[in-house]
Amino acid sequence: MLYIGIDLGGTGIKAGVVDEKGSILLKDSCPTGAERGYADVIADMAKLAISVVEKSGHTMDEIKAIGIGLPGVMDPRTGRVPFCTNLGWHDVPIIQEMAKYTDRPVFVDNDATVAGLAESVAGISAGVENSVFVTLGTGVGGGVVLGGKVFSGSHGVASEIGHMVTVVDGELCSCGMRGCWERYASATALIREGRRLCKAKPGTALLKAVDGDAKAITAKHVIDLAKAGDPDCAALFDRYAYHLAVGLVNLINLYDPEVIVLGGGVSHAGQFLLDAVRAKLPAMVFYKDMPYARVELAKLTNDAGIIGAAMLGR
Amino acid sequence: MLYIGIDLGGTGIKAGVVDEKGSILLKDSCPTGAERGYADVIADMAKLAISVVEKSGHTMDEIKAIGIGLPGVMDPRTGRVPFCTNLGWHDVPIIQEMAKYTDRPVFVDNDATVAGLAESVAGISAGVENSVFVTLGTGVGGGVVLGGKVFSGSHGVASEIGHMVTVVDGELCSCGMRGCWERYASATALIREGRRLCKAKPGTALLKAVDGDAKAITAKHVIDLAKAGDPDCAALFDRYAYHLAVGLVNLINLYDPEVIVLGGGVSHAGQFLLDAVRAKLPAMVFYKDMPYARVELAKLTNDAGIIGAAMLGR
Repeated sequence: MLYIGIDLGGTGIKAGVVDEKGSILLKDSCPTGAERGYADVIADMAKLAISVVEKSGHTMDEIKAIGIGLPGVMDPRTGRVPFCTNLGWHDVPIIQEMAKYTDRPVFVDNDATVAGLAESVAGISAGVENSVFVTLGTGVGGGVVLGGKVFSGSHGVASEIGHMVTVVDGELCSCGMRGCWERYASATALIREGRRLCKAKPGTALLKAVDGDAKAITAKHVIDLAKAGDPDCAALFDRYAYHLAVGLVNLINLYDPEVIVLGGGVSHAGQFLLDAVRAKLPAMVFYKDMPYARVELAKLTNDAGIIGAAMLGR
Repeated sequence: MLYIGIDLGGTGIKAGVVDEKGSILLKDSCPTGAERGYADVIADMAKLAISVVEKSGHTMDEIKAIGIGLPGVMDPRTGRVPFCTNLGWHDVPIIQEMAKYTDRPVFVDNDATVAGLAESVAGISAGVENSVFVTLGTGVGGGVVLGGKVFSGSHGVASEIGHMVTVVDGELCSCGMRGCWERYASATALIREGRRLCKAKPGTALLKAVDGDAKAITAKHVIDLAKAGDPDCAALFDRYAYHLAVGLVNLINLYDPEVIVLGGGVSHAGQFLLDAVRAKLPAMVFYKDMPYARVELAKLTNDAGIIGAAMLGR
């Protein structure tokens, strides 16, 4: 059987026909046009799904299920999306809307969850029973796979790992709490700390790298300077890696996965990031003499959304 | 079929014959005598197990499995207990030792895990698919039940919820890390903060309650004074409840259980504790409009260890 995977983002919709093994046979995309409201966006998703099947030379009869990954949460009891902030969605009856265009079963989940599932089917954690996928982007998202299946908890709100508090009374988070892990482990954290560094030390290499415009600092600037041995950025990155490791140890203490997969923008720091984090873990894990999760980099990048969404229906 | 549940503690061994529903038919106990070494302790466990079956009028043929809960960790791959600090155990071949005395299958898990399983079979979380049991004692232990089964992770080190860091660089923990949740949410935390209060404010009611001997402070002193409306202890307890709630929100964000069960010494504060924690959660959970875990008090108390251990083999 075949599956359709749909990666619904704030700017674009990607869809692909995917086989049992997680390989994409054909994919296509279109703009999201979120400002039009959910009904039009969902109509376009369905059209794109049907068109990729046609273009692939297959028919909808061969499609076992349609999966959708989106930057929000799905309530499995109601078939509705209570929140999808980037798209301005509130309480959207996504299953019901999709049913207007197709009789195939539709499965929906969070985009980080879907990316984690993709890695566990066709990526770095392939074949692993228990894994946690961590996206280090603007925020920190999580995809938890337990027993080979997506774990969404009892109310569909599990795996919000970015909002686990690691610093009580710390930095204010967009969610209203203080000290959420994503305030310390996201690309945004590297940027914020980079700007603070520039303010505190105007002669620092980071400020020179952005021609004195601290607003232009990206996570890559900080990482590249840390790699190049700049002491200020190296110290900043080391502190970042410590905060990242604290959260990973929490994931180990709670989920004890076989593999933790790092994805998202900051993961492009590659081996440099892995080395920094892996070096910190042995002293931080609770059971010093017991094996614990391997930390690895994501393997699938742009296609993870399509593959993982497709695998929701497997 | 019937089961034997064994609750192995630092001072005593309790064993019982338990039916499919988690009811104890007969139980008995003996001293642990941990100083004798593991071989003698395990021999006594096996003898006690065999004797409770005989006293109950049943035979070992009717026993499907023997379960053991202990204050340590089990390595499911080796059948050995790498650590059991209270008993001074290191790398103990518990399955192999038990096999000298019985041919029934033996299952071993952490005592908090076992207590959580007991609650999910015959206690407050009976019939619930996903629940987290939190023991608020000298430390903070956890028993995680997912999909109706004990969740021990990929290496048997999951559910170490007390060692989830909630306060980066905070209080030093016995595990070597700083800022573990149990440093803030255990009975020990209430005692420590009570002592600090007495040092900072010698006229406080708490110090009077212990006749000026701050070393005599227990969690109950602090809780009772907070209940009675003493402003210093009320503020201390409110801060305790906040730290407790932070960890519970982390559990919600990661496991999203249907129920969180509070057990252990501090849970004897009862409704007063529940009210304090429940009042804090709505503003702290990530999805303000989505349902989340009910927080409840443990129902089984002294027998949870026997019942839960027995249910390991079910």
